[in-house]
Amino acid sequence: MDILNLVKNLKETNDGKIVLLVADGIGGLAKQPGGLTELETAKTPNLDALAKVGIQGMSTPIKPGITPGSGPGHLGLFGYDPLRFIIGRGALEAAGIGFAMTDNDVAIRCNFCTTDAAGNITDRRAGRIPSGESAAVVQKLKAVKIPGVEVFVEPVKEHRFVVVFRGEGLGDNVADTDPQRTGVPILKPAVHAGIQCAASEKTAAIAKEFHEQAVKILAGETKANNHTMRGFAKKPHMPGYQEIYGLRSACIAVYPMYKGLASFAGMDIVGNAATLDEEIDILEKEWGNYDFFFVHFKYTDSRGEDGLFDEKVKMIEEFDRIIPRVSALKPACLIVTGDHSTPATMSSHSFHPVPTLFVSDLVRTDQREHYSERDAGLGGLGHFEAMYIMPMAMGHAGKLGKFGA
Amino acid sequence: MDILNLVKNLKETNDGKIVLLVADGIGGLAKQPGGLTELETAKTPNLDALAKVGIQGMSTPIKPGITPGSGPGHLGLFGYDPLRFIIGRGALEAAGIGFAMTDNDVAIRCNFCTTDAAGNITDRRAGRIPSGESAAVVQKLKAVKIPGVEVFVEPVKEHRFVVVFRGEGLGDNVADTDPQRTGVPILKPAVHAGIQCAASEKTAAIAKEFHEQAVKILAGETKANNHTMRGFAKKPHMPGYQEIYGLRSACIAVYPMYKGLASFAGMDIVGNAATLDEEIDILEKEWGNYDFFFVHFKYTDSRGEDGLFDEKVKMIEEFDRIIPRVSALKPACLIVTGDHSTPATMSSHSFHPVPTLFVSDLVRTDQREHYSERDAGLGGLGHFEAMYIMPMAMGHAGKLGKFGA
Repeated sequence: MDILNLVKNLKETNDGKIVLLVADGIGGLAKQPGGLTELETAKTPNLDALAKVGIQGMSTPIKPGITPGSGPGHLGLFGYDPLRFIIGRGALEAAGIGFAMTDNDVAIRCNFCTTDAAGNITDRRAGRIPSGESAAVVQKLKAVKIPGVEVFVEPVKEHRFVVVFRGEGLGDNVADTDPQRTGVPILKPAVHAGIQCAASEKTAAIAKEFHEQAVKILAGETKANNHTMRGFAKKPHMPGYQEIYGLRSACIAVYPMYKGLASFAGMDIVGNAATLDEEIDILEKEWGNYDFFFVHFKYTDSRGEDGLFDEKVKMIEEFDRIIPRVSALKPACLIVTGDHSTPATMSSHSFHPVPTLFVSDLVRTDQREHYSERDAGLGGLGHFEAMYIMPMAMGHAGKLGKFGA
Repeated sequence: MDILNLVKNLKETNDGKIVLLVADGIGGLAKQPGGLTELETAKTPNLDALAKVGIQGMSTPIKPGITPGSGPGHLGLFGYDPLRFIIGRGALEAAGIGFAMTDNDVAIRCNFCTTDAAGNITDRRAGRIPSGESAAVVQKLKAVKIPGVEVFVEPVKEHRFVVVFRGEGLGDNVADTDPQRTGVPILKPAVHAGIQCAASEKTAAIAKEFHEQAVKILAGETKANNHTMRGFAKKPHMPGYQEIYGLRSACIAVYPMYKGLASFAGMDIVGNAATLDEEIDILEKEWGNYDFFFVHFKYTDSRGEDGLFDEKVKMIEEFDRIIPRVSALKPACLIVTGDHSTPATMSSHSFHPVPTLFVSDLVRTDQREHYSERDAGLGGLGHFEAMYIMPMAMGHAGKLGKFGA
């Protein structure tokens, strides 16, 4: 039996609430060996107060040495084995713009590109056409009509846009049409070599029709006169939070990507916050309506990605500031963690494990004074894979029965 | 997706080099509770200097409680799940004498034995005939000729020797001919009960022919007048280092066994060192030609096996002495570890986890002053299975891309 089924079978209901507080990319690195990380540098009196009554450990997002993207990073946090539940690139892109996919959808990442008179690609990214210009061209593509299928075309950023086909019996085993080089024509949409799949043949035919109509619409454009299609993907098949955990679950996030990921897990997306304070306003407002809250704070990751050590420190202090408001709600189990580390010294996501703190009446405290990498590394929870955070949360909230007699 | 395929998909190339420095059996035990292990007793200023700028953890060779042999111990270190990639005993024995197997080979561990006039075994080990005597008899067996197959016969130690059949379409599902007791005849080579395999039938027929010719050649011997065959094994099927990691990989070792194991992983065996200093000479000389170096030091294990605590301490100090020469080469990631523990108090391999140290610009240091069991037990890397050392090395060398977007 796998852990999801085990938890599903053992779940019990009580009034306690679980809050999963995710400071994206919170883990970091010191500027030099033996120095302090961003989190260790930050003044975090509120997180440290939790550390004294809680228990810490190190969460490995995927497996040792592996750097996660936001998709697998969050799936792990949500309790799914990120090597088993893979989100196709089209679906992730749709999630990223907050497009709510249904089970009848196939989502595709598209790039505007430039082709010459002979139909050969001269620029795979249409000169990285600016977002405003690109959105106007996307608007024109909404004119595409295909019988028997609903078509959505949505802008992303620069030359990128998303196409979603909604209809019965569509498969997603369709190969990319981007030949990955210039001087050659765009490929025709076709089912992956070696696969027989009538549902995907249907999608390939629809994609072909879409592309033919699109080329006519784009004929007058100088840069974005054509487009490629990549990462054909259905909505991932995942059991939802209600089914696994018996939890009425809410996602509170600012960025569409995280809302999209949470919606794949069956969480309700609540409120429309633009700041961390507004996120906590929503948490307070919705407190009575849900059993589980995923609250996402983006800017620890953003500053890390930008390589701004001191700015990331400030964002961590910003994050610390709202902790008392969360604690005041008295969750049965509060988890503070990140989906991965984003050391400012690397200006990117990294493979380093993530300090993870549990607070609950049932924690076995571990005599740590601070919430930090060095404390979590010596914390009472040891090292564990992120996919076990949810079972631990359920246990600490008293929501799991005994396995076996 | 498993970890090998994950790493294979994410691998990236850069100029950094990885050095896996293995002090065989380095982990140990104190002579009495609370005392110092061999490693904790040894004066290791150079390893301790690395500990201060590196990060430690405990590597579990196979699974908790399991004592590994050299084969599975090294497969784990090389990144292969040692419970999935099993090296047949014949192939391991061939590796142990440095015999370079090809995909067309079946290797067999043979024992000289003594049989009476009725053909019943009277001594399963031919009186443990000394190696010199045994080698002379092995020499005679080289006269065996079998049409359509190349036959190799090589001495091992005392009554043991290796036979390799090289030919097209040979299988290795052949049962041992050793009845494991005296007073009964040697079994005829036959395919394992319940298995239908034409390739293995072919091997069994060749083995039968070999044995018939051998018995005639051995007729004049008083002790080694017969032989048994065990552990029929083809070369293990493993993806190689180039395929998985994209690394040009070299093995630097003194003992044939470790060269054989490394060759199964597709490493080049470089140089012909007889001492640790010569091994480091080769490392320096080959530095520009490879991306990965496995350097094996044997004597920490040997002295442990011999139960010589103080001598093992000296060997650890010997090992410490060459560390600056390795560091001076500036590997992107240096790993210091062992394939298992060999406590002198046990005079054998043991199940205890192995102190493992990583040094790289990307390590998150863990405030440890020494490289030792007690430091590694509280190290920032926690406890992990040996098969994750290579993914961690790839991450710390900046050679893995992000998993998912």
